[in-house]
Order: sequence, then C-alpha cells, then structure tokens
Amino acid sequence: MAGKVFVSVSMSLDGFSAPESMDGIFATPEQREQDPRLAHWVAQWMELQSWIFPLRFFRENLKLGEGGEEGRANDIVRETFERTGASIMGRRMFDLGERSWPAEAPFHTPVFVLTHNRRDPWERPGGTTFHFVDDGIHRALERAREAASDRDVRIAGGSETILQYVNAGLVDEFSIALAPVLFGAGTRLFDGVNASKVALEPIRSEPSTRVTHLTYSVRPR
Amino acid sequence: MAGKVFVSVSMSLDGFSAPESMDGIFATPEQREQDPRLAHWVAQWMELQSWIFPLRFFRENLKLGEGGEEGRANDIVRETFERTGASIMGRRMFDLGERSWPAEAPFHTPVFVLTHNRRDPWERPGGTTFHFVDDGIHRALERAREAASDRDVRIAGGSETILQYVNAGLVDEFSIALAPVLFGAGTRLFDGVNASKVALEPIRSEPSTRVTHLTYSVRPR
Repeated sequence: MAGKVFVSVSMSLDGFSAPESMDGIFATPEQREQDPRLAHWVAQWMELQSWIFPLRFFRENLKLGEGGEEGRANDIVRETFERTGASIMGRRMFDLGERSWPAEAPFHTPVFVLTHNRRDPWERPGGTTFHFVDDGIHRALERAREAASDRDVRIAGGSETILQYVNAGLVDEFSIALAPVLFGAGTRLFDGVNASKVALEPIRSEPSTRVTHLTYSVRPR
Repeated sequence: MAGKVFVSVSMSLDGFSAPESMDGIFATPEQREQDPRLAHWVAQWMELQSWIFPLRFFRENLKLGEGGEEGRANDIVRETFERTGASIMGRRMFDLGERSWPAEAPFHTPVFVLTHNRRDPWERPGGTTFHFVDDGIHRALERAREAASDRDVRIAGGSETILQYVNAGLVDEFSIALAPVLFGAGTRLFDGVNASKVALEPIRSEPSTRVTHLTYSVRPR
C-alpha cells in the first residue's frame, strides 16, 4: 500500500523559497552589524514563513509554547504532518535543523538525510530518527517508502533536493503556500526544473488568512 | 473621482509572464523549421494563456467567434474589461498587438503607448484610440487617469512596463492568473522589482477551473 511522494513548501510570489543565504540565522549581533545582509536574509525568511509561526499546531510541534491560531491554515499544517510517514531532506537543511529543532525534533517519524558522509542513525526523543543515506536519491526514497508504509513520503527540502526528485519524475504531488512577499533575489524554488518533462495538474487552491495553498499533481510530459 | 491603477496578467507557477521571445508568433513555417525554439516559445505562450482562450467574453472581444465557456473565469475577465477606463502599454506590446488584434481592437477605450517615437493618435473602430506618449511614465499615467475618469487605469504590459510603474509606487492593485505551468526560462514578471520598497497585502484568492486568480493591494514599505 504505497503512499504518495509529496512536497510542501512556502514560496514568495516571485518564486523564491529561501533567501540568498541562511547564514544570518546563527550570526552573532557583531556579525550582523558587520554584514547587514545577514539581518536582511533573516527578515526575508521570517516574512516568508510568517503565516505559519502563529499557528497552534506549528507552535506546539516546535515546542514554541502552548496555544496559537486555529482555523484552516492550522488544519492544513496538521494534515501535512499527519499524512507524512517519512521525510527526505538534503544535508544543508539537516545541518540547519540540527541547530534549530528542539531535542524532540518535529518529525516524529524516520527522516532520511541525503549526504556524502556516512554517519550512524541518530535517534531523538519523540520518535524521530535521522538516517544518513549516501547511495543516492532513489535508494533514499526506497527506504523512506518502506518506513512510511501506507503513509506518504515528504520531500522536505531544500529546493535542490526537491528539484532532484521532481526532475527524476519521483514526485506525485506538489503543495505550495504562496506568500504575499517579494524577495527580488534568493534561492528560486524551481531553478533548474526540467520544464519540458514536468506537467502540473491543479488539484486545489485554497486561501487562508495570509497565504494561498496551492496543490498540484505532478506528471511526466 | 480617481480610479485605481491596476495590473492583471497571467504568470507561470515559476514566475514567468512570457517566453524568452515572442518572435515565433509571426514566424513562417520555414523559419520555425530552421529554429525549433520559435515553436517552443509559441507553445509556452499558448499554454500560459490556455485558460483564457475558451472563455466567451475573451472570444467575443477578440472576434474569435461566438460562444464559449461561461462561469467565474469568464466573469473575472469581463469585470477586468469593464473596470478599465484606459490602458497603458509598452511599445513592444503594442507592436505585437498591432499585428494581432482585430481591426476593432479589444480595448474600446483610450490606450497610451510608451514610446520614444512620436506618432499621431491612431483611432480604431469600436472606440479604441492609441495615443503615443514620449514624455515618460508619469505623464502617460496622468493622461490615462484623465481619460479613464472614475474608472480604473490598467497597466497592460509587458512586464518591463509593469515593473516601471510598480517600482515608481504608482500601482494600487496587482492581479495574477497563476497558471499550472512551468516555463524554466523566459521573461520573469518580477525581474527587477524593488523588493525592499514594495509590499503586498492579499485582497482575495479565487480558483477557477484552470488557474488561481490572486489579487493583492500594493503599498510602499
């Protein structure tokens, strides 16, 4: 009973899913003062994600505190979590997360990290185990499918990892929270997509308070 | 009784509002055979616009024939037409249109064309008069506002003209028909936007059969 392979990310209206660099996240005040771009990149990232921070499910899952907004956006975030039986992410996303997530990491499922460096599985409290896969995206997906059983596999990010899976024809469904933000520069979600091979079919389009939740099925063309 | 200044365009999910070139539109079969990109660009353009071609209002206004699809998308296209008291466009868009529009051009209002070459107004049957403005975007907008009276002014395109007005803080409202298409390359709608000066506020987001109709108010930031 194979589940789907899906993507769910935030994108600015001009197509960016991340600022030029995430270096600002862990920069010291001194570093930020020396390089004003660091603060700018953090501000962009926060603005892109600002729809999700106040949501009750997100706050509780990230251990940011009790309470928060309920409603459709919150339901969508919870549904995305609940359908996910395993996640796949790139090494850079893991490295960032390793420094940001609470000890009880927010996945509560196996997570497969694409890497060139072997490393033993890393088990966290609450059911998240990170597995480090150094034999390619197909093998990582095989392992994630097996771990997810009848639930879905999420290609979590970053955009380079997402595009590798999209271009290999391995993604069934693509969800975007389209934010009312213009970046002007940064990391484009679809940079390098093989547009001649990838077709999208709209499944649904649903506004919440701050963003539009777009869902497409992905097919070869 | 000043109306609004608005934009209404189609955009691919990866942020393109036109292919790399529109040269394919008028290419001969021989030219298309010699340069396969010409056919590719036309195919991209057709796919981006494919949501609008079957609509009854669009077909009748472009003299493509009687009949066509009704429903929400058709209403949106008609409402966009009805609110428009004058349009502004760049010279390249006009040049393309001059070879494509029917004699009864589809505007039925004054149209102000930004150009460096003076030319007498060109009056078409059905109420469209093209005025050629060589003294800048502010002056073109003044004249368009005056002509539109209490109706709205549409910045019709292309994207370079749209961005000039957005970056000058002269656009009040931005509507995008977001199409389930990936271009991979072409003309980006927001290429060159002054992201640090332009803020968007969602007004509404409405799906129709093929596209999502996104409307934002535009503010300085």
